[in-house]
Amino acid sequence: MLERISKDTRLCISMSGRPSNIGTRFHNHLYEELGLDFVYKAFAPANIEDAVAGIRGLGIRGAGVSMPFKEAVLPLVDVLHDSARAIESVNTIVNDDGVLHAYNTDYQAVSDLLVEHGVDSALPVTVVGSGGMAKAVTAALRHNGFTDGTIVARNEDTGRPLARKYGYEWRADTSDVAPGLIVNATPIGMAGGAESVDLPLPHDFVAAASRVFDVVAVPPDTPLVRFAREHDIPVITGDEVIALQAALQFELYTGVTPTREQVRRASEYSRS
Amino acid sequence: MLERISKDTRLCISMSGRPSNIGTRFHNHLYEELGLDFVYKAFAPANIEDAVAGIRGLGIRGAGVSMPFKEAVLPLVDVLHDSARAIESVNTIVNDDGVLHAYNTDYQAVSDLLVEHGVDSALPVTVVGSGGMAKAVTAALRHNGFTDGTIVARNEDTGRPLARKYGYEWRADTSDVAPGLIVNATPIGMAGGAESVDLPLPHDFVAAASRVFDVVAVPPDTPLVRFAREHDIPVITGDEVIALQAALQFELYTGVTPTREQVRRASEYSRS
Repeated sequence: MLERISKDTRLCISMSGRPSNIGTRFHNHLYEELGLDFVYKAFAPANIEDAVAGIRGLGIRGAGVSMPFKEAVLPLVDVLHDSARAIESVNTIVNDDGVLHAYNTDYQAVSDLLVEHGVDSALPVTVVGSGGMAKAVTAALRHNGFTDGTIVARNEDTGRPLARKYGYEWRADTSDVAPGLIVNATPIGMAGGAESVDLPLPHDFVAAASRVFDVVAVPPDTPLVRFAREHDIPVITGDEVIALQAALQFELYTGVTPTREQVRRASEYSRS
Repeated sequence: MLERISKDTRLCISMSGRPSNIGTRFHNHLYEELGLDFVYKAFAPANIEDAVAGIRGLGIRGAGVSMPFKEAVLPLVDVLHDSARAIESVNTIVNDDGVLHAYNTDYQAVSDLLVEHGVDSALPVTVVGSGGMAKAVTAALRHNGFTDGTIVARNEDTGRPLARKYGYEWRADTSDVAPGLIVNATPIGMAGGAESVDLPLPHDFVAAASRVFDVVAVPPDTPLVRFAREHDIPVITGDEVIALQAALQFELYTGVTPTREQVRRASEYSRS
């Protein structure tokens, strides 16, 4: 029922090449639960400059930014906050009376989860992948004191510069890498993915890890997460990232901090 | 409850200097009643160019346009349909895969109501006012064969050109005007209005009319409508205009024609 929407209801949106229902369901569920006068709706913009103009022109309160727009919006916002500046990538825009503030709550969520799970920063860390999420993960690791790291990526053109930026090594495979904390920042394991392999790294290498962090959020029990659990390796899952980053967005848009239990239920609902 | 909103739900909006809740409630009520996957929300744009860019950029399906933007959007749309072209004023934008079509459903509604109520076009007609709504009314009257008309407006600078455009007379008052059909296109009688007079024309003049049409929509029983009814003069009310023009907008956005009874209920709900 839409009947509680009024002229004063504030709109938040997401902008993404291929929208999912997760954000829309997560935010609208929490608005209802907390009695906030907001409504959320996903969009697949035809033109990102026009879409951001629309955020300003209409007075849309906030916007989640997903692939392929996370870098394209950098020159379109007014204030770049640390989380977005650190990785030159925006996943959240907040419109404060016409001034567009940009954040990256993926970076923030990964960083917070490393602390929350008490992951030892002395561990060697292997980041698999060299795309946008790998950037967020690597920056967050470095920010949290992980100095001994390796980027494992088939693409040397993106892998090597990412490694260099944070003082990590780049490798095309794990042949001379020490297991420790493994972070998967590739789409391998994602539902409906086109990858032919089940794990992003060799089984032996994963089996020797002391901690596994999979940022793939759908499904929450990726082959990597299941494999790690079968080998009694503690895991951090992608649905923790997506729930926490969404909660951080929610707080930026509304000024209200949902409880952990409320976030858990909204997150569960958003996937149902 | 917002829980039925998904990534596929289409957004329609209104753009107005001072939004009311009527459109938002009318459209959302009908979406629910007809089971259409749409949601409606009113906006007060900070910048109309950016707002229209946002309609394109985000892929917003439709937009109602109110004061003070009805003329400002003319150069921002792609296709000007007859109803908008006739009065150079837009109150409805429909986004068809990135092509913005512009209409004026106020004009269309006034025109349709004259036919529906069987108003005799041989009657002399007095239009009170010379603003945007007076333009729509006068064009619709002329389109329906009313050739003997007078624009009564204090403002000669707007009243005289409007009259001339449609072959009507302009008068500052009713002293030498023949009563017949009276159309009020001023805000006189509007709830919360600042006008000190109750009727837009002298009591004697109104009492001698054969038909009264008040385009003021809030309240539906303006002093003019009440006065006419007390004198057994048939009336057409502003809430008929607003309901019909909104139904025409609804049809342009959704492709679905609500029944008269559904429109009546949605209209009643929108004011409750």
